[in-house]
Amino acid sequence: MTTEMHPTRWGDPAEAAPLPQATRDLVELALGVRDSPAVEHAALPPSGISAEVLAELRALLGDDQVLTDDDTRRLRTRGKSTPDLLRARQGDLSDAPDAVVRPATHADVRALLDLAVRHRLAVVPFGGGTSVTGGLVARREGLAGVLSLDLCRMKALRDVDLTSMTAVLEPGLRGPEAEALLAEHGLTLGHFPQSFEYASIGGFAATRSSGQSSAGYGRFDALVVGLTMATPQGTLELGSAPANAAGPDLRQLVLGSEGTLGVITAVRVRVRPRPTIKVYEGWQFDSFAVGADAMRTLAQAGLLPTVIRLSDENETALNLASQSDVGGSAAGGCLMIVGHEGVDAELIEARRGLVTAQLTRLGGTALGEERGQAWAEGRFHAPYLRDSLLDVGVLVETLETATFWSNRERLYGAVKAALTEKLGEQTLVLCHISHVYETGCSLYFTVAAPGGETPLETWQGAKAAATQAMVDAGATVTHHHAVGSDHKQWFAQEIGPVGVQVLRAVKRELDPTGVLNPGVMIP
Amino acid sequence: MTTEMHPTRWGDPAEAAPLPQATRDLVELALGVRDSPAVEHAALPPSGISAEVLAELRALLGDDQVLTDDDTRRLRTRGKSTPDLLRARQGDLSDAPDAVVRPATHADVRALLDLAVRHRLAVVPFGGGTSVTGGLVARREGLAGVLSLDLCRMKALRDVDLTSMTAVLEPGLRGPEAEALLAEHGLTLGHFPQSFEYASIGGFAATRSSGQSSAGYGRFDALVVGLTMATPQGTLELGSAPANAAGPDLRQLVLGSEGTLGVITAVRVRVRPRPTIKVYEGWQFDSFAVGADAMRTLAQAGLLPTVIRLSDENETALNLASQSDVGGSAAGGCLMIVGHEGVDAELIEARRGLVTAQLTRLGGTALGEERGQAWAEGRFHAPYLRDSLLDVGVLVETLETATFWSNRERLYGAVKAALTEKLGEQTLVLCHISHVYETGCSLYFTVAAPGGETPLETWQGAKAAATQAMVDAGATVTHHHAVGSDHKQWFAQEIGPVGVQVLRAVKRELDPTGVLNPGVMIP
Repeated sequence: MTTEMHPTRWGDPAEAAPLPQATRDLVELALGVRDSPAVEHAALPPSGISAEVLAELRALLGDDQVLTDDDTRRLRTRGKSTPDLLRARQGDLSDAPDAVVRPATHADVRALLDLAVRHRLAVVPFGGGTSVTGGLVARREGLAGVLSLDLCRMKALRDVDLTSMTAVLEPGLRGPEAEALLAEHGLTLGHFPQSFEYASIGGFAATRSSGQSSAGYGRFDALVVGLTMATPQGTLELGSAPANAAGPDLRQLVLGSEGTLGVITAVRVRVRPRPTIKVYEGWQFDSFAVGADAMRTLAQAGLLPTVIRLSDENETALNLASQSDVGGSAAGGCLMIVGHEGVDAELIEARRGLVTAQLTRLGGTALGEERGQAWAEGRFHAPYLRDSLLDVGVLVETLETATFWSNRERLYGAVKAALTEKLGEQTLVLCHISHVYETGCSLYFTVAAPGGETPLETWQGAKAAATQAMVDAGATVTHHHAVGSDHKQWFAQEIGPVGVQVLRAVKRELDPTGVLNPGVMIP
Repeated sequence: MTTEMHPTRWGDPAEAAPLPQATRDLVELALGVRDSPAVEHAALPPSGISAEVLAELRALLGDDQVLTDDDTRRLRTRGKSTPDLLRARQGDLSDAPDAVVRPATHADVRALLDLAVRHRLAVVPFGGGTSVTGGLVARREGLAGVLSLDLCRMKALRDVDLTSMTAVLEPGLRGPEAEALLAEHGLTLGHFPQSFEYASIGGFAATRSSGQSSAGYGRFDALVVGLTMATPQGTLELGSAPANAAGPDLRQLVLGSEGTLGVITAVRVRVRPRPTIKVYEGWQFDSFAVGADAMRTLAQAGLLPTVIRLSDENETALNLASQSDVGGSAAGGCLMIVGHEGVDAELIEARRGLVTAQLTRLGGTALGEERGQAWAEGRFHAPYLRDSLLDVGVLVETLETATFWSNRERLYGAVKAALTEKLGEQTLVLCHISHVYETGCSLYFTVAAPGGETPLETWQGAKAAATQAMVDAGATVTHHHAVGSDHKQWFAQEIGPVGVQVLRAVKRELDPTGVLNPGVMIP
């Protein structure tokens, strides 16, 4: 598998494929198609960094670790939101960094930050390049250039504590790399977001990521017990205990800071025994509301399985239509996936029995393991489908939010209405719940609509309306995609003016020259 | 039960009692006794607030809500640490506030803060007055006086959401008051620290409190899903979802802020069904290490009961000696208390069966429910015993910390050694673990030593040595007692210079005139 992604597409080109003819026909019928090939070799702006600064960078890191060639810079340009892809597909690579620098140690990062401050260079930490919220697009105003701080050389598993069940991971480790290192010790992190194959440990921490097994393993911010962050003011090292009452929990200020307050150079995370048993099942519920209530009941009874997700009627119908085994008892209603993982067969069976009894009581029909297995196998593949749809001129994007249970239905309706109003009646809006808590849940929407002549502007209008609908409904603007530059104005509404003041004050203190991922997250 | 505590003692005088003669004899033998009565009616410094300012305060809140009489001020003087009590017992009430002000609403609090800024008056939020870390002792330098902002009129249960299982509580509610209001809806907060009978919701939030049922219900900071804080810069309102990726979690900056960044005027907390079943059991383990390992195994298997606590050999021996039912199979070793609470008998029995099997496998011997019940009945009573011991010249205090499991033994030894070295070989050091996590646990020490001529100075030397030992062992300086003014210098070591810079920057931003609980928490 390639580890670097072209700015116009997701993932490994070997995994990409055009739409099957039957799907293309279906899409043509529903939304219309127009061949919309990407400009594959667009020109980059020249690197604007002076020879003196490059020499200084090379003296610091070594000649091989400071790269300004077009190929390297192209692969570090922006992230993977649909707007990012649309811009790149149109041949716009104007956000390419001026240089890619590759530190090997925390000390390297600290020295790089000092250098960046001295020369007023923006620093954009780069892990997997999977941001879908404009987190890798630095504002250039007032600065002499943009460095992509590529963490690809910081990939060590630095410590394993089998008694405390913690491990220290470096930020450049991609999901599969971290899992492979932990597997040598019989451990797992249990963090599997859809971006897992490319996204990095540093990115998980910097964006408060949440994975598909969050019900069992916890959100990434719940996994972190300690961390180290390099800042222009020095090093912040936190994590003296699992929990404490020693003032505000500053770890929670670093988690979600998206590279704007410093560069996370290590995290100590809670780990679990690597599961030897994994069972995924399909369940059917009559409606999204009935299924959601069942999830709520499980969460509030302390009976959550490792994975639990529920598609609404539209997503269920489309998922079935795109698979060969349509029909049978799974037709109609809403599909729920329930996964149980662990190492102790007896414990898993005990828990599975309780969950099964509850789900049955709450109106669920068991569909067996085949459908659960199909989900598990395809879980990281959806982004490839987006590329194929963009190729035929269909606008596809996802957005997500979260709220308390009592507000779920209102939020669901408001976001759907905003999208449909902006994109037209033929728009497909699919939704699922994939992260649940005792007090509430996430809502994850997938949207497909005709791209038209100006897909970028069309999407931006719809995204703005949907995000405002979230704020107006009292919900969060992002449950697990972070703020980036795309959510900033609504994030400001979410935390209010005093919240914005606090973030700006911390930013000013740690990064007074404003070189750290400028323009991202902090309104 | 009285709700106001005299500065020389804990709790309700009706509950206090001199030591039984047998206990006194035992203490005399071990530590020596000397009658050390408290000065009960020491003089207060006169209120230093000008008539003009008082008039302004009265115009704002009403005449009845601005109090400067000695009795009211006396009951708002300092907290309940042993140093606080020793100072008051010696007749030193020099930290009495100049006035006690009682706002009724968030708007009142906001207006009070504006007034305090205008007149440079320190504002010390007062809930239950149970701080044991000097959290209620404001630094007066550069300020015109000290207001005790008594939250006793803000005691509403403002909202109950039975779908999301959340409730909005006002900060002045004491533990039992909050539970009584929630009980009307069949709910519980499940937060029962030793200070429960007096401590308040606002205090729980401001100090990141953790209760005796934290294994089952979670720490207070884990219970909070939303909050409102009045600051001199305006109002901060947070909590748009159970969890999100919308930047740093600013709720975690308010939790633990100890009144230094603003006044918490409401919290939205997760609630649970009020348990109809409560079973507490005693268990015996051969040693503290074996018992601790059993706790770790349960935590890491996801099998924690509602309550789990383990006394070390010394605490076990002393607890048995002070009870009538000494002996039998409980003699020697270490006592563990295990509690199961809930509403579903079947679920509780299933879980209890799994826990019992594990504890037995891990070397535990079940002692039955009698000993568990005895713990449950006496759980809030220990502070009364301290008063009786101070009356006979014995120095008694508690201190606590937390660390990761692999560091538990080292930390335990280091703190004990530091205390014994400072206080002498005859010192009694007892310890228990009462809060456990997958990755670590708390350690709670009770210390008893001869007070001598200068008990305050003697204790301060021992406390300093023990706290430095915690920092040197890489542990936290407080798991659930907060920073206050007593832990500040070691807290600075724990979060390091960059952490201190961050806190100071936030403080400067929200409280530029420095009126909010000056001298507390922020180094």
